[in-house]
Amino acid sequence: MGRFVVGVDLGTLSGRAVVVDVVDGAERGSAVHTYRHGVLTERLPGGPALPPGWALQDPADHVEVLRTAVPAAVRAAGIDPAEVVGVGVDATSCTVLPTLADGTPLAELPDLRDRPHAWPKLWKHHAAQRQAERITALAGARGEGWLTRYGGRVSAEWQLAKALEALEEDPAVFHRAQHWVETADWLVRRLCGRATRNASAAGFKGLRQDGRDPDAGFLAALHPELPDLLAKLDHGPLLPPAARAGLLTEEAAGWTGLPAGVPVAAGAIDAHVTAAAARTVAPGRMLAVLGTSTCLILNAEHRHEVPGVCGVVADGVTAGHWGYEAGQSGVGDIFAWYVERGLPAAYAEEAARRGLSPQDLLDALAADQPVGGHGLLALDWHSGNRSVLMDHELSGVLVGLTLATRPEDIWRALLEATAFGARTVLEAFGSAGLAVDELTVAGGLTANRLLLRVYADVLRRPLHVLATAHPAALGAAIHAAVAAGVYPDVERASAAMGAAHRETVQPDPARADAYDDLYADYRALHDHFGRGGTDLLHRLHARRAPRPAPADPSSPG
Amino acid sequence: MGRFVVGVDLGTLSGRAVVVDVVDGAERGSAVHTYRHGVLTERLPGGPALPPGWALQDPADHVEVLRTAVPAAVRAAGIDPAEVVGVGVDATSCTVLPTLADGTPLAELPDLRDRPHAWPKLWKHHAAQRQAERITALAGARGEGWLTRYGGRVSAEWQLAKALEALEEDPAVFHRAQHWVETADWLVRRLCGRATRNASAAGFKGLRQDGRDPDAGFLAALHPELPDLLAKLDHGPLLPPAARAGLLTEEAAGWTGLPAGVPVAAGAIDAHVTAAAARTVAPGRMLAVLGTSTCLILNAEHRHEVPGVCGVVADGVTAGHWGYEAGQSGVGDIFAWYVERGLPAAYAEEAARRGLSPQDLLDALAADQPVGGHGLLALDWHSGNRSVLMDHELSGVLVGLTLATRPEDIWRALLEATAFGARTVLEAFGSAGLAVDELTVAGGLTANRLLLRVYADVLRRPLHVLATAHPAALGAAIHAAVAAGVYPDVERASAAMGAAHRETVQPDPARADAYDDLYADYRALHDHFGRGGTDLLHRLHARRAPRPAPADPSSPG
Repeated sequence: MGRFVVGVDLGTLSGRAVVVDVVDGAERGSAVHTYRHGVLTERLPGGPALPPGWALQDPADHVEVLRTAVPAAVRAAGIDPAEVVGVGVDATSCTVLPTLADGTPLAELPDLRDRPHAWPKLWKHHAAQRQAERITALAGARGEGWLTRYGGRVSAEWQLAKALEALEEDPAVFHRAQHWVETADWLVRRLCGRATRNASAAGFKGLRQDGRDPDAGFLAALHPELPDLLAKLDHGPLLPPAARAGLLTEEAAGWTGLPAGVPVAAGAIDAHVTAAAARTVAPGRMLAVLGTSTCLILNAEHRHEVPGVCGVVADGVTAGHWGYEAGQSGVGDIFAWYVERGLPAAYAEEAARRGLSPQDLLDALAADQPVGGHGLLALDWHSGNRSVLMDHELSGVLVGLTLATRPEDIWRALLEATAFGARTVLEAFGSAGLAVDELTVAGGLTANRLLLRVYADVLRRPLHVLATAHPAALGAAIHAAVAAGVYPDVERASAAMGAAHRETVQPDPARADAYDDLYADYRALHDHFGRGGTDLLHRLHARRAPRPAPADPSSPG
Repeated sequence: MGRFVVGVDLGTLSGRAVVVDVVDGAERGSAVHTYRHGVLTERLPGGPALPPGWALQDPADHVEVLRTAVPAAVRAAGIDPAEVVGVGVDATSCTVLPTLADGTPLAELPDLRDRPHAWPKLWKHHAAQRQAERITALAGARGEGWLTRYGGRVSAEWQLAKALEALEEDPAVFHRAQHWVETADWLVRRLCGRATRNASAAGFKGLRQDGRDPDAGFLAALHPELPDLLAKLDHGPLLPPAARAGLLTEEAAGWTGLPAGVPVAAGAIDAHVTAAAARTVAPGRMLAVLGTSTCLILNAEHRHEVPGVCGVVADGVTAGHWGYEAGQSGVGDIFAWYVERGLPAAYAEEAARRGLSPQDLLDALAADQPVGGHGLLALDWHSGNRSVLMDHELSGVLVGLTLATRPEDIWRALLEATAFGARTVLEAFGSAGLAVDELTVAGGLTANRLLLRVYADVLRRPLHVLATAHPAALGAAIHAAVAAGVYPDVERASAAMGAAHRETVQPDPARADAYDDLYADYRALHDHFGRGGTDLLHRLHARRAPRPAPADPSSPG
């Protein structure tokens, strides 16, 4: 009897695989494959330019993770592949692609390769904001019962907005698509040959509630041909989290080097499997995955309506609980944007001289400032706002600039803005009567010690920091262990295999007090720009011109 | 009989001298001396750190201009110094210093060298905002008649706020000062040995109206010892523009290489003498001097009250007219701040590779954007706001940032913000019934062609661009020609000696239309942050911490 499972996590810029011991969750080996095409925001490969707000991926990049990272991780683990008993896959969501009935992505058809709507739309594709607003307005007008399950708003990031956008802008592509598939489900089909649909994404990103997708009448009121979407979504049975989707095919065994016939778990959403890795599937334990964006996950016994929180789904995270998801659409990518487009040469040189990353240099320069000493306040909406405003035409704001403002001041203000954004979401949960007893953080940004300190102070809570480099992949592996029958449910698998805490960061009461004042200002600015004090950000969005694509996006001209 | 005059202009970072033909104003030679200490904002030379908002100069740097730039300009002109018939001096204002009765700056006394209030406070010293607000409030409460001559507000940049700040924070320095002197007047005394007071600065920066300084009762209500200031200000006769202050002393002849005994004109404010150089002393012709800050000068037949415009003074620019001054406290220095602290290494390298300045590279990349295409809007208050809000605790705002925002987008938004600021001032003149028939621009920023185009479009007016590299120094030379008796008044000297237009930049109607929309948004944002929509900028100011002084302000750490 084998004792290892493999978790595969398909992120925004790269995919990774880990080999994990089913007994204690110990990671035995891992490998990362960086996508050849990354995120397509400027133009299609060799094809036309993309308008503002677009973000696509290449499906071939995802398959390449199965071919490269999985066998590399097994090799790194030094185990016999025959000891692997299950495979699980998670991906970003809602990252969705149109395919033929046999699963072939439309983007791989020669005659559609130059059609942007034929490509997988990444979670952070934000160009369907107008469609999202019409969907929200119509659902409100018709009194659709599911609307309150999504905080009263439908996101531009979700399936329906992205599909309606395709139907309106490129109907031929919409009609050519026989299936409309989440990326994780598409990869699971590649592994086990069976088309399935994970109930978690269907609920959190597909507006499916109480066993029903939005009804055809509602869809027809948006566009007479939109009801066709229902058949495209119905491409396989709905599976609860960690259910067995099928068994590894010979073809996929060839790609991965794993034994044909091992169980493959249902597709899953990255942040949701991370809750299993973080041992936060029990009610009251919140998980915050701090990365390119931030995802906040909470299980609860009961259903509450939380305005602006983006989803509550029965059995959405684990079977038997109501799963809640909220999020901040831009976090790490705001920091990356600043380092790429705002860091002066003198700082880059200083970082090189001291052997630091630019981020570490900025942290070092900003760390000892008194709270508020930079005199700045920022809104963290460079990639729009998911919770609690759910508006992807919003944009970032920076207030308080003087001739004495330094890069480390702006840097710190950006870190703080994302912490204030997180506090806004936590307070929304609290106001809705949902207890958050504990907060665990995971994700790439937990490497940033200043950020952890700022978050602990702003949130005035201890932060438990997860001690694993690949939390989502570990979560996918935990789902694999359940699908393989090693554990009866995610709760027990999580308790046995979940990661330990690397440390717990405690808040400083004096800094927390000072941040209360700044946070009050943040909330006022947030409501002014985001809740109707002014419609300026929407007017600026409407004026924003398409970006010509530079040869190298990191260099001018 | 000689035929040349020398104009000396003491700027923010450097001083310059020009040798000019009295017949036609032709520049025959010039020289520039960069101050050794520049602007002191972080700490005194070898002394203590300065709080936020401070900006001092070293008086020795000003004298050094007389010793170096004047003889160098005469040498460059290739003329016989004996042919020089007059000297004029202008300086930034209100740049004011405390001295002993013999004119010795307190900053040069060994026991006061470490006392910040002993040093000349530069025009853009903004730390006396609280004093300025108390002065404004008291003048309003007492119904002081002069208040409306200053748009209803007293600026932190002016004499009284700076003096009250010294009295409150370092009374020993205040009481030690026997004179309280504008820098231009102090330099004139150095040249001719006679203490005089120029009526222009007394009016525009000293609240002197209708022949009276603010009265002792008013001053006593601010601080019981403040009436002592009146005797300190009364250090010599008040002289109208271009009056003769005295004759060059033997000592100053030794410094400058000019003949002892030539007439020296009364001290003057840089932007005001520039009006003579620009031939804009006739009513209805506005001059905008676009540099580190922007100064707007207009003569009129009558007195109007213009809310938020910083001064109207009888005989303030030329004898016989009401002179108006308005301004924007930060323009070129906002652009310099961005290039120093916001330009990424890739752009600096690209500029070097293409042999361009960073500013020229940013202009080139930003020039062809459609209006509003960057999706940004900025408030140009990084150095506070002079007109029409007169509040130096305001700060800059940048709205509309996305992950696609590029440096050239921010650059263009900053250029535009200063143009919107200029439009705000011009509209205040118009609303007060003051016609602006023509607009002439001068100053260092007229070298920026994109900036000129943006201003013409935003203001929807032709811009006449002055064809001289040293407009203020030329203006000082024109004043010298009047003081020397070559012309009977500034009007006639200006007509004969003023500079031609290098070009006239015409507005583009389509771009001007698009800017009308953006400007409407600017005004709404301006009023929200500057006129009580929120007090956020003042709270951020109150939290701002003193800056530790780096060894090199251009490098981190």
